[in-house]
Amino acid sequence: MRYRIEKDTMGEVQVPADNYWGAQTERSRNNFKIGPSASMPKAIIEGFAYLKKAAAYTNCDLGVLPIEKRDSIADVCDEILAGKLADEFPLVIWQTGSGTQSNMNVNEVIANRAQVLKGFAIGEGEQFIKANDDVNKSQSSNDTFPTAMHISAYKMVVETTIPAVEKLRDTLQSKAAEFNTIVKIGRTHLMDATPLTLGQEISGYAAQLSYGLKALKNTLAHLSEIALGGTAVGTGLNTPEGYDIKVAEYIAKFTGHPFVTAPNKFEALAAHDAIVESHGALKQLAVSLNKIANDIRLLASGPRSGIGEIHIPENEPGSSIMPGKVNPTQCEALTMVCAQVMGNDVAISVGGMQGHYELNVFKPLMAANFLQSARLLGDACLSFDENCASGIEPNNKRIEELVNNSLMLVTALNTKIGYYKSAEIAQTAHKNGTTLKEEAIRLGYVSAEDFDAWVKPEDMVGS
Amino acid sequence: MRYRIEKDTMGEVQVPADNYWGAQTERSRNNFKIGPSASMPKAIIEGFAYLKKAAAYTNCDLGVLPIEKRDSIADVCDEILAGKLADEFPLVIWQTGSGTQSNMNVNEVIANRAQVLKGFAIGEGEQFIKANDDVNKSQSSNDTFPTAMHISAYKMVVETTIPAVEKLRDTLQSKAAEFNTIVKIGRTHLMDATPLTLGQEISGYAAQLSYGLKALKNTLAHLSEIALGGTAVGTGLNTPEGYDIKVAEYIAKFTGHPFVTAPNKFEALAAHDAIVESHGALKQLAVSLNKIANDIRLLASGPRSGIGEIHIPENEPGSSIMPGKVNPTQCEALTMVCAQVMGNDVAISVGGMQGHYELNVFKPLMAANFLQSARLLGDACLSFDENCASGIEPNNKRIEELVNNSLMLVTALNTKIGYYKSAEIAQTAHKNGTTLKEEAIRLGYVSAEDFDAWVKPEDMVGS
Amino acid sequence: MRYRIEKDTMGEVQVPADNYWGAQTERSRNNFKIGPSASMPKAIIEGFAYLKKAAAYTNCDLGVLPIEKRDSIADVCDEILAGKLADEFPLVIWQTGSGTQSNMNVNEVIANRAQVLKGFAIGEGEQFIKANDDVNKSQSSNDTFPTAMHISAYKMVVETTIPAVEKLRDTLQSKAAEFNTIVKIGRTHLMDATPLTLGQEISGYAAQLSYGLKALKNTLAHLSEIALGGTAVGTGLNTPEGYDIKVAEYIAKFTGHPFVTAPNKFEALAAHDAIVESHGALKQLAVSLNKIANDIRLLASGPRSGIGEIHIPENEPGSSIMPGKVNPTQCEALTMVCAQVMGNDVAISVGGMQGHYELNVFKPLMAANFLQSARLLGDACLSFDENCASGIEPNNKRIEELVNNSLMLVTALNTKIGYYKSAEIAQTAHKNGTTLKEEAIRLGYVSAEDFDAWVKPEDMVGS
Amino acid sequence: MRYRIEKDTMGEVQVPADNYWGAQTERSRNNFKIGPSASMPKAIIEGFAYLKKAAAYTNCDLGVLPIEKRDSIADVCDEILAGKLADEFPLVIWQTGSGTQSNMNVNEVIANRAQVLKGFAIGEGEQFIKANDDVNKSQSSNDTFPTAMHISAYKMVVETTIPAVEKLRDTLQSKAAEFNTIVKIGRTHLMDATPLTLGQEISGYAAQLSYGLKALKNTLAHLSEIALGGTAVGTGLNTPEGYDIKVAEYIAKFTGHPFVTAPNKFEALAAHDAIVESHGALKQLAVSLNKIANDIRLLASGPRSGIGEIHIPENEPGSSIMPGKVNPTQCEALTMVCAQVMGNDVAISVGGMQGHYELNVFKPLMAANFLQSARLLGDACLSFDENCASGIEPNNKRIEELVNNSLMLVTALNTKIGYYKSAEIAQTAHKNGTTLKEEAIRLGYVSAEDFDAWVKPEDMVGS
Repeated sequence: MRYRIEKDTMGEVQVPADNYWGAQTERSRNNFKIGPSASMPKAIIEGFAYLKKAAAYTNCDLGVLPIEKRDSIADVCDEILAGKLADEFPLVIWQTGSGTQSNMNVNEVIANRAQVLKGFAIGEGEQFIKANDDVNKSQSSNDTFPTAMHISAYKMVVETTIPAVEKLRDTLQSKAAEFNTIVKIGRTHLMDATPLTLGQEISGYAAQLSYGLKALKNTLAHLSEIALGGTAVGTGLNTPEGYDIKVAEYIAKFTGHPFVTAPNKFEALAAHDAIVESHGALKQLAVSLNKIANDIRLLASGPRSGIGEIHIPENEPGSSIMPGKVNPTQCEALTMVCAQVMGNDVAISVGGMQGHYELNVFKPLMAANFLQSARLLGDACLSFDENCASGIEPNNKRIEELVNNSLMLVTALNTKIGYYKSAEIAQTAHKNGTTLKEEAIRLGYVSAEDFDAWVKPEDMVGS
Repeated sequence: MRYRIEKDTMGEVQVPADNYWGAQTERSRNNFKIGPSASMPKAIIEGFAYLKKAAAYTNCDLGVLPIEKRDSIADVCDEILAGKLADEFPLVIWQTGSGTQSNMNVNEVIANRAQVLKGFAIGEGEQFIKANDDVNKSQSSNDTFPTAMHISAYKMVVETTIPAVEKLRDTLQSKAAEFNTIVKIGRTHLMDATPLTLGQEISGYAAQLSYGLKALKNTLAHLSEIALGGTAVGTGLNTPEGYDIKVAEYIAKFTGHPFVTAPNKFEALAAHDAIVESHGALKQLAVSLNKIANDIRLLASGPRSGIGEIHIPENEPGSSIMPGKVNPTQCEALTMVCAQVMGNDVAISVGGMQGHYELNVFKPLMAANFLQSARLLGDACLSFDENCASGIEPNNKRIEELVNNSLMLVTALNTKIGYYKSAEIAQTAHKNGTTLKEEAIRLGYVSAEDFDAWVKPEDMVGS
Repeated sequence: MRYRIEKDTMGEVQVPADNYWGAQTERSRNNFKIGPSASMPKAIIEGFAYLKKAAAYTNCDLGVLPIEKRDSIADVCDEILAGKLADEFPLVIWQTGSGTQSNMNVNEVIANRAQVLKGFAIGEGEQFIKANDDVNKSQSSNDTFPTAMHISAYKMVVETTIPAVEKLRDTLQSKAAEFNTIVKIGRTHLMDATPLTLGQEISGYAAQLSYGLKALKNTLAHLSEIALGGTAVGTGLNTPEGYDIKVAEYIAKFTGHPFVTAPNKFEALAAHDAIVESHGALKQLAVSLNKIANDIRLLASGPRSGIGEIHIPENEPGSSIMPGKVNPTQCEALTMVCAQVMGNDVAISVGGMQGHYELNVFKPLMAANFLQSARLLGDACLSFDENCASGIEPNNKRIEELVNNSLMLVTALNTKIGYYKSAEIAQTAHKNGTTLKEEAIRLGYVSAEDFDAWVKPEDMVGS
Repeated sequence: MRYRIEKDTMGEVQVPADNYWGAQTERSRNNFKIGPSASMPKAIIEGFAYLKKAAAYTNCDLGVLPIEKRDSIADVCDEILAGKLADEFPLVIWQTGSGTQSNMNVNEVIANRAQVLKGFAIGEGEQFIKANDDVNKSQSSNDTFPTAMHISAYKMVVETTIPAVEKLRDTLQSKAAEFNTIVKIGRTHLMDATPLTLGQEISGYAAQLSYGLKALKNTLAHLSEIALGGTAVGTGLNTPEGYDIKVAEYIAKFTGHPFVTAPNKFEALAAHDAIVESHGALKQLAVSLNKIANDIRLLASGPRSGIGEIHIPENEPGSSIMPGKVNPTQCEALTMVCAQVMGNDVAISVGGMQGHYELNVFKPLMAANFLQSARLLGDACLSFDENCASGIEPNNKRIEELVNNSLMLVTALNTKIGYYKSAEIAQTAHKNGTTLKEEAIRLGYVSAEDFDAWVKPEDMVGS
């Protein structure tokens, strides 16, 4: 491989000749060979592209950056956002905890790419755009990285997670309405209980997701606050007057999302509680989705030795050894995602709790885990919705068989003959393998007419 | 010990003669010898007392319970709330996951105590109030236990956690204001950075708690919804018309908190996402408090070989072997509480994700962990506030010494001579153990006059 | 309440007149009103009693403590171990993270109780035994508290957890042997699969516990190492020559467990990885037990609308509203314990990872969570063993009905007619609601004779 | 893109014409668009290559596979191990929880690649090697995937994690020896304490890693047991006699690691406690490494306003805004890895606890998290070792200054004048800003000669 020599404040570094990145990126590549290369999420790099462009515009508006430099920086940012420079960001999550090196990676790529767009080779002639003094002007890693975190996290939640969860919630709601008169046995403690309708059962799932969505949306205000303008420690040193508010406005404009400047920049650098908070809501959704997916696979279990009250789509052969087997694979993918989100929540919390003084240095970890959770939950909900939930159908024959056979219909007699006699009827029928009606009559507690009038599953499911 | 014989649907049980509880409580005592006895939180029992009273009033209003029974039940509930029957609830957390046995414990105690209040011995004459048919009328464990969970959780958060966190936040805010002109060195990556004021630093802590409080309050609406009226599986079987709304109104009235009936009872029995959600906010507060307490002990470290920029109160001798040692013990208690809350969050999430069909059977676990977290955070914030935060004082001599000596003041030169020359000055001073000014002049980059004009810590902390 | 005045290096303190504790205990009571009082585990106090006695003996042997003082200290330690001074340890977990105040609580109680045993009132005459100079001789909180942690943790694991898990494992093993010829349907992905025996299924549970026991025992060596002799920072300052080895021998002798002195005292004070390690094994057991208990409740579900392949004991009425309902309550108690242990593992890890320099100050948190997990797992396994596992019985009728009906028996044909034709048979039978044999013949792939010869559930379960 | 048509038991599927994978792989690609493609770890695919080759050899030895088929399968496996078919495994972690589709992906690629190696185009002529009937012979996803998990996990731990942790431990041990006479102040509760040597301090870190290594090695026996031979549910249906033992021997031979067949295959399919167990040890290492890395950055903090007792290598510029700043970036990368491992432990435990009946369906999740942790810990330890630990140097000037100034040297007087007088000396010196010696003499407790004889830091650090 061909190399060129680049310099930073520590001296010279050999850098691959054909890449735009410079000395500090290369140092990081060499010093942090931890896990697969380029693991820093692309969404973070895009977040940087938005903010570098916004910073250039703001610096220009406030008179500290010439308009040609602004445009030059913005052009490269647009290229990054268009995915044109995807191979220029080779760094890993496991670098400095402030993400300084990814900030410098972006600064260096923009500066060198701008030089090339001007018609020069990298390193040829005087550098038109300087990585630190121009691209990074009025910025520090300490405020840019958390800004990239919030931009990427907010976008992922609003563009990927929420729409997917809403789609699944809507499917469940329409299934709940569709199945609202299908009376089935209820189960508590996994044991037979009083009846409800299949629609009621599914309405509980939809309600869970609605609560989760509300909880997630409650966190967006905090997540929309950005640190930019705080620079090194939150004081905003080396930023022009009015910079923080204006740069947030540009970010809002470029992204189409309502970002605002954080009212307290010290908090915004030293803690990432907004990430903790939003991920808490993602974890709540994971808890809900695990319950829902688990229920659905239990209800669909069988075909002959399980519960079998619903059918779910058969999407692929289920076994490499058992012919004809079909499995609830979408439930499995979704519950694995839920387990991952539960783990990520701990990783994020452990990172969030360990800031020191003016800076939390678990930023890349927190960002990467957050983005993974938000993406996986969104993707998995879409997949589950399309390949499973939207195809749920009742197995009416099985449902009727089970509900009519249930001993827990005896509960309808509580208000007629009291809890104790009702229990005696159920226990006797259980012991003898008979029906409630038979035993109710035999014990002399209820007449046949009264039994038929009082014990109707369809009257036991509420209005 | 003397015993009496009690009966339930399974047969006879020997019960301690002088206790009010009955057969089912005693079965649970015998069947669940897991951990210390009586570990079911008292706050849950109180929650039951509120709801049993409310149910009695509602049942009476709706014509299914005579007024004398209502008053008799309510009288015992009031006794429980007054703490008079504290020894009558011997059951543990680790019982059935629906909390059925604690529901029955309350039912039995109320029924037998009512009998005694009528002037009879326990078991003497006909039972005036029946545990299942009267005290538990229009109820099931499946809707009462989650109702008791929400009542107790809401009360603990609103009465204990929030006021304590607000008190600490207010103390930090007033300290932030008080110290707002004390310029000190900033630290990022634990390394010397540009200056800020001590007030600014502390303002970040106050901001964290304000965000946490907002997040916690966002969860109260969900937590204020109660399951009562769902009975066994959410359908409301065996409840009179209008029961759920009215019983929630009575609970609101008796507790003084704005409880309402849950719009979807299926969700309210099968999932406890409201507990997951609120505890997520408690965990966020734990993350914040850990950062704050850790910073404060770092800032107070020394007295001679640490940072020593602040003084915290000396509350007790710190060592049984090292004379004269004083330690940041309040920080330690608080950070231990934070670690506990992080663990409790996992316990609650693991419980919350594992419901089956119509019922989550991790109810007592979730309730106990929630109540512990909410109580500990509240108590620890009060303790920390009174015994540590309110006594924080700056060590002005040390603060000045450190800030004036700092190499990172060189950042002020960035916008004057550029990042590279500034770095050279700092590195040279570091290497030579000299001051920035000496090296700035010697390198010929800045005159003495300019240096003094440009490099002023007090000008570097923003407006 | 009556008070007396006690003094420590910080001055005078009012202490309840009738209690043995002194100034530092009282300061802690006042300064740490966090959660219920006296939450510091009793097992820790007992650990202290063992080590204080051992230290007195060792100090005496090494010539730095007179024999009368040794005996006086030992007498009070024996009283503590006999449970006679239970009300004298009022402190909470949430105190200083080194547990200094509980160490001083023990020192003070021993000193004052010794004075009383000498025939004096507390505070009367010259103090015969001094809390710091005698009881705490050759010790520091920093080495005594971790020693008490290891003593109590080791004892709890060896005396409570392991025997209980072994008992349950043995029960499962005998059930596995007993049911080893009962052929039943297997289930993978919750869906019908090829058969196995009920004994084979249960043998997997027993194997899980055997692995867990082995893993737990692997951790005991580390847990048997004690910090005593390290004093303040691990150097052993102020201890006589040979003290650390001898004091460990005394502890081993008094407890009957093979405690040894930790080879590196710096590690033993600054980190509690032995606690992290052992608790990791407890968490593994929780993971296993959750799987086992969950399977058992699924297998026992019904009675009419679930799986119903096994019967478990009916221990108590299951519902306050549904008469005759019986629930898998032991499974629920056990899985709740498992969830708690999972949470405790995070609390312990978060505490363990945050030590600073020479001391980890999350000691009481780590100890309390460890002891809770070890106790609850032990108690819950015993309860589950006695009240559930030992009463498991097969429902042979149901088992036979399900296995004979299964489509997955078709797998036996794979090696005869290939995977594809086998799949076609199964899918057709599923679609038509017919038997495998009918479709195998109708499709012309297998003769009736061959089918009967090849497809025998009892031949499909291995040797 | 060009496509060809492939068939499975469910019908036809369009597959990219130039890829080796077949119908089931393509179904999975379409049905599980969750997260980035090809996220299934490469190490798992390699594990499959080892086991498919071993199965082919075993099947051949046992007479159920012709030698030409064996060799053909083995040739492709060798190509996979050589990395030649890297683009042929496009599936994601978030698929079916048994990993069936990745098993089939490998089966299909081997079958089609074998066809091409025979000189045919994919799909041309009769299929020489059949994916299900030949490549998957005597196997099921249910036993192959866990086998691939154990092969990959064991290899990663033994080849990557352990050597790296040992290298770091060895470096720390040699630093401990090198610095063993450098007396420095100790710190407990972050506060000044009695002295120890820098070597002693570092020896504690080395001891932590030695314990962690021992704990990790304790888990290898369980991890070396493989499920292969259990097939669908653990009974070994459709495997020839002696298969399980022999196939494990081939795997041991091909990998060079001591794999053996699992004694209980039911456990090996239905639970993955070996993964839980080993990852528990990885988590313990994370807890240790977090403490170590955090201490090192605290000790190196400054350069002028921190602790500054050690120097660590300066590897890259630390700030994009603060010139000359150097940060403990290796500590940050390592502690971020530790936080990730803590989170992964929860994900793995949550997956491990949720198996149902004969199969745990969180396999890909558990494998992916395990492999990430083992890899990251290994890589991060190497990086930390090379770029930080091996370059640690004492700042002798600073160390001496701090230790000589310390008030906690007073502890040496405890055994001479008692704890109370010693405390008075320290407190007075603290208040007056004087030295211990000055106050000791002024208070009349110690003569100058005695003070000098008794209070020597170098005598306070043990032998």
